[in-house]
Amino acid sequence: MTDKKVITVNEIPFGPVAWGRSKILVGPTATHPGLALAEHIRVGVTEYNPDTPHEPHAHPGQEEVIWVLSGRGYTETHGERQDLFPGALAYIPSGLEHKTAAVGAPMTAIIMKSPAADATGKVS
Amino acid sequence: MTDKKVITVNEIPFGPVAWGRSKILVGPTATHPGLALAEHIRVGVTEYNPDTPHEPHAHPGQEEVIWVLSGRGYTETHGERQDLFPGALAYIPSGLEHKTAAVGAPMTAIIMKSPAADATGKVS
Repeated sequence: MTDKKVITVNEIPFGPVAWGRSKILVGPTATHPGLALAEHIRVGVTEYNPDTPHEPHAHPGQEEVIWVLSGRGYTETHGERQDLFPGALAYIPSGLEHKTAAVGAPMTAIIMKSPAADATGKVS
Repeated sequence: MTDKKVITVNEIPFGPVAWGRSKILVGPTATHPGLALAEHIRVGVTEYNPDTPHEPHAHPGQEEVIWVLSGRGYTETHGERQDLFPGALAYIPSGLEHKTAAVGAPMTAIIMKSPAADATGKVS
């Protein structure tokens, strides 16, 4: 059961992740009372710290779209980098190894994933 | 088969819709050569014209997230309106009747939907 919900990005606080800060705004588990519960989609915001890029990883059975709001960085797969900047978005197919990093200053992006959990049941 | 793809919002042009202008950036059918083909998620941008609000509608079997980038407006369900503004997002459960409109000037929003097509196979 999911209900219609209007929220503001700032009402949900960031939490720390190894590569910066992150929050989930729409998703399948109520990680914050302000979150909009959803069945199929998971939407969050990540602020990537340029000093701690995340390691290459993949989401089996789950697609991702990274929509850059501010800052600059890159997405890397098998050593090949493509620039990210405001107005750019990256589509990552399910299961594909990728790494996202900021360059010089933090990069903030909307992170959209579907299905809401990956094939292992993980919501990340 | 879907491939990783980095695109910029502006490389895909808007097309006219009854309620303003719209474009699909990530989706299940190659409506534009620049689009990122996806299986589960459909991401686009809609510019709502305040003079031609769309009529209440629903997407059976498909969830929607409306992430406002600029302008102001509202989302309405069964006559109940909630304000939309930059930094606000609305989660619409599958099958729920809703209407989205701009007030005063165009409102631009990222539109995320999952599954990529609704239960009738429609990609809208």
